[in-house]
Amino acid sequence: MTTSDRLQHLLDKSDIADVIHAYCFHFNRNEPDAVAALFTADAIVDYGPEFPAMQGIETIAPAIARGLHDTFAATSHHVSNIVVTFEDADQANSICYLYAWHRYQADVPDSELWAQYHHRFHRTAGGWKIAELTLRAAGAKSFHRSKMHPIGRK
Amino acid sequence: MTTSDRLQHLLDKSDIADVIHAYCFHFNRNEPDAVAALFTADAIVDYGPEFPAMQGIETIAPAIARGLHDTFAATSHHVSNIVVTFEDADQANSICYLYAWHRYQADVPDSELWAQYHHRFHRTAGGWKIAELTLRAAGAKSFHRSKMHPIGRK
Amino acid sequence: MTTSDRLQHLLDKSDIADVIHAYCFHFNRNEPDAVAALFTADAIVDYGPEFPAMQGIETIAPAIARGLHDTFAATSHHVSNIVVTFEDADQANSICYLYAWHRYQADVPDSELWAQYHHRFHRTAGGWKIAELTLRAAGAKSFHRSKMHPIGRK
Repeated sequence: MTTSDRLQHLLDKSDIADVIHAYCFHFNRNEPDAVAALFTADAIVDYGPEFPAMQGIETIAPAIARGLHDTFAATSHHVSNIVVTFEDADQANSICYLYAWHRYQADVPDSELWAQYHHRFHRTAGGWKIAELTLRAAGAKSFHRSKMHPIGRK
Repeated sequence: MTTSDRLQHLLDKSDIADVIHAYCFHFNRNEPDAVAALFTADAIVDYGPEFPAMQGIETIAPAIARGLHDTFAATSHHVSNIVVTFEDADQANSICYLYAWHRYQADVPDSELWAQYHHRFHRTAGGWKIAELTLRAAGAKSFHRSKMHPIGRK
Repeated sequence: MTTSDRLQHLLDKSDIADVIHAYCFHFNRNEPDAVAALFTADAIVDYGPEFPAMQGIETIAPAIARGLHDTFAATSHHVSNIVVTFEDADQANSICYLYAWHRYQADVPDSELWAQYHHRFHRTAGGWKIAELTLRAAGAKSFHRSKMHPIGRK
């Protein structure tokens, strides 16, 4: 790769990281419309395996809005270890780590989650958007869900 | 924006992130002079709302030194989700996430804080400096302060 | 430094960060061969001070493999605060923060570690490799080791 191509990837990686950061920021502020605006129209989101993957923003958006309103009283999603690889100039895959803290509407203990987001991104006329998101967990404490997609530990 | 301008922002963003990292590093090593050197002379720091915002490095520096010496026995400040936006070539705003762990001089449990730093940065002859810092919290456990500025969850 | 030199450092910093991320990813997936491939042949790893620093990949690789297999049932290593400084074009030093969560094979509580990795990196024909790694801890909870190298708090 030329230096020019590598610098273009660095710019794209920074933009993609900011999409991940916007997801966390708006999720934590309970702004479901702003979260939904980060996805492509035909995006796939898999928070499973307890419920099936959701496809299409008309399905994803209300599900996120319900969770933010009904389940959580406060959340904080700390992402790090962001690695981005490019399929071509307009498609990228990414894995990042998520350390998430949650307080519930219900009278139950706060929870912690040590996890990963596996993303696919598409460049659109409106910038990079999330085309696919799968949540995979290494472990959790007091989390409201007992089964999670694994990170693939041997 | 031209690619050249975008690359200049990327360089500035990296320098700004390193100022945030230096703040954490020197704070965690109890090096208050090195922390204070990261601020502009007329900086504003708001760790409130329990006490008012501090203005001016002569006020901020001894307050940080006292906290580091009197309150904490050990701290670790993990920052992530750093987003930087530029007002112009020499002024930038930033939001980052803070996950902080603290051990106290007093015989009380260790604490955890899930929070955000909201920063304003100025480019000076000595590089980027913190012109304003506000701490906002999503939640905390066993923290020594009960009231914090909120992150603005709806 | 010229802008061109600064951009080259930014590209190198991104590559070095991805080596740190690969270390965490493969460590957390219990892939010791992939972890070992990130080090130079004569690397030095110091997880001490309870045991001496290890030198040479023939010593380091089996020690990491044993720990991954015998000690841990699950781990998640969240790195952040990555600062890289260059000695010359092919040698760099780095400090990053580590927040690590561990579940054990033994029936003991999960542990948390608030720490730092201090790295030395060499550029090789196969890309940037870890030439030296020292783990320093600010604090820990329920960790399986009681003595750690300190972060140097005054």
